[in-house]
Amino acid sequence: MTSTRRAADVPTLVERARDGDARSVARLISLVEDASPRLREVAAALAPYAGRARVIGLTGSPGVGKSTSTSMLVRALRARGARVGVLAVDPSSPFSGGALLGDRVRMQDHATDSGVFIRSMASRGHLGGLAWATPQAVRVLDGAGCDVVLIETVGVGQAEVQVASTADTTLVLLAPGMGDGIQAAKAGILEVADVLVVNKADRDGADATVRDLRSMQSLGGRHSEPGAWRPPIVRTVAARGEGIEDLLAALDKHAGWLETSGEGARRRLDRAAAEVEAIAVAALRARIGDLRGSAALDALAGRVATGTLDPYAAADTLVATLTA
Amino acid sequence: MTSTRRAADVPTLVERARDGDARSVARLISLVEDASPRLREVAAALAPYAGRARVIGLTGSPGVGKSTSTSMLVRALRARGARVGVLAVDPSSPFSGGALLGDRVRMQDHATDSGVFIRSMASRGHLGGLAWATPQAVRVLDGAGCDVVLIETVGVGQAEVQVASTADTTLVLLAPGMGDGIQAAKAGILEVADVLVVNKADRDGADATVRDLRSMQSLGGRHSEPGAWRPPIVRTVAARGEGIEDLLAALDKHAGWLETSGEGARRRLDRAAAEVEAIAVAALRARIGDLRGSAALDALAGRVATGTLDPYAAADTLVATLTA
Repeated sequence: MTSTRRAADVPTLVERARDGDARSVARLISLVEDASPRLREVAAALAPYAGRARVIGLTGSPGVGKSTSTSMLVRALRARGARVGVLAVDPSSPFSGGALLGDRVRMQDHATDSGVFIRSMASRGHLGGLAWATPQAVRVLDGAGCDVVLIETVGVGQAEVQVASTADTTLVLLAPGMGDGIQAAKAGILEVADVLVVNKADRDGADATVRDLRSMQSLGGRHSEPGAWRPPIVRTVAARGEGIEDLLAALDKHAGWLETSGEGARRRLDRAAAEVEAIAVAALRARIGDLRGSAALDALAGRVATGTLDPYAAADTLVATLTA
Repeated sequence: MTSTRRAADVPTLVERARDGDARSVARLISLVEDASPRLREVAAALAPYAGRARVIGLTGSPGVGKSTSTSMLVRALRARGARVGVLAVDPSSPFSGGALLGDRVRMQDHATDSGVFIRSMASRGHLGGLAWATPQAVRVLDGAGCDVVLIETVGVGQAEVQVASTADTTLVLLAPGMGDGIQAAKAGILEVADVLVVNKADRDGADATVRDLRSMQSLGGRHSEPGAWRPPIVRTVAARGEGIEDLLAALDKHAGWLETSGEGARRRLDRAAAEVEAIAVAALRARIGDLRGSAALDALAGRVATGTLDPYAAADTLVATLTA
């Protein structure tokens, strides 16, 4: 199909995005998110500008203050003159709020700042999901000249934690009370932390939370190997901007370690490999999806549902069809 | 490799599981979860017993009382003489707790009841993740003769919500306060609800939550089509067992509708198709994963990381390798 509507071509959009035009950035992200036919054109146009942004993941349970912390970080990074992109993957984030919502207040702090671009990635179930869509959006923000891209995800849900953990630096936020250290440990989010942030540190129980984290760290894990990075524990009160200097210092220190240890290059390579894999998996999944509703898949599913065929044998048939 | 350790063969395990032996059920789930070489043998042995259990998904934000509600439901279903399996996907569920945890109290209610089988699916990132592992575990519980399988997932995270929504009947739990109706709507979990449960209905704000839900329902959506199921709103106080009769009545009514409308057969077919697809995608992903660390993928990732190749072109090469 051809469209006769007037639309800026991709090179023009990329050029405008690099000049800081928020609408062009938004349009490019929509093109990649919607898997538009021009997706590949966008990716090709952005490729030369890839790999410059520093990617910071920020995750934690609902209620620990992720959005407030994101906002605090944006403000501090802006004060340093950095261009900042924010991808809010958390569906309960005020940054993700759609028409239902009146609490986009904090986002408004940055609404008139052309050096900040905020985008919700709350849409779900699209193609390969978050694993597929988030790197594409990072790619746009990176290509558009953002120095830092913050990815805010809720620290519950395997896709969400995974997305945050593909960053150069991953912040895990906790708050006192709620047995949060334990909850985080159970959810596996402590493992992915490069910097641990105890937010709402003015509340009762902050010391206990820090102590819990220290004792969990002393139990070992990947951080106890020689030469490994030991995640610092930073206390913040994001709503009042307290602790931001310590947090920035911890981020800078980690950035330095990434360079000197070679871990930074390794993470960028891993991220590129994961991105390529996610696209390849999505492409193969799409081929399978094309079969949905087809007589062939329906027949297989019907036999599985009635127990005359096991699902592995059915999947073998499906894979054979695709790779024939 | 061959193992000389003594181990019950798969047909024996299936036979014992069908007699209600919890250890055999656990062993079978481990075999499928760990993608043991005997996985296919297990699936084949279970296939003839597939499709008898009623699958109920139960989801909601952290703190709404999912585990307490699950426990209440288990008790009520047991009182009817049903055999019940519980799969706790929520990593923060007491049912999922590992060594870190002292709060398995509610689970203990059922620990000595051979008609209840409870299993945590908290492990993450395995193969195709929850989309892959959960149907396999349902298959084991179904094959083992469970009349009802409850899948408890946290209603945050796209994989988690998806898993709950593949059930025959999906319960979405909310609690008064916290703007929970809005949060749930934003997270997209209202869309998947067949029955809405306002738990902690003795608290202030329960009426407002019910009202919010009613007004959101009146806004339309798939439930407003002619002949469609309109999710009832049930009030419960799960901690005291209150409202369980209403909840069971709503579940029974939905079960009846599933049969008369033909929707039940459609969901079972969809679930089988989704299961076959997830296995096929996992198999293809595993083939891609086999390339990880290979010179070929490293070279592609390196070119993507440095911007000399766009990730789609790299993925094309990868897919071509697999389907050649």
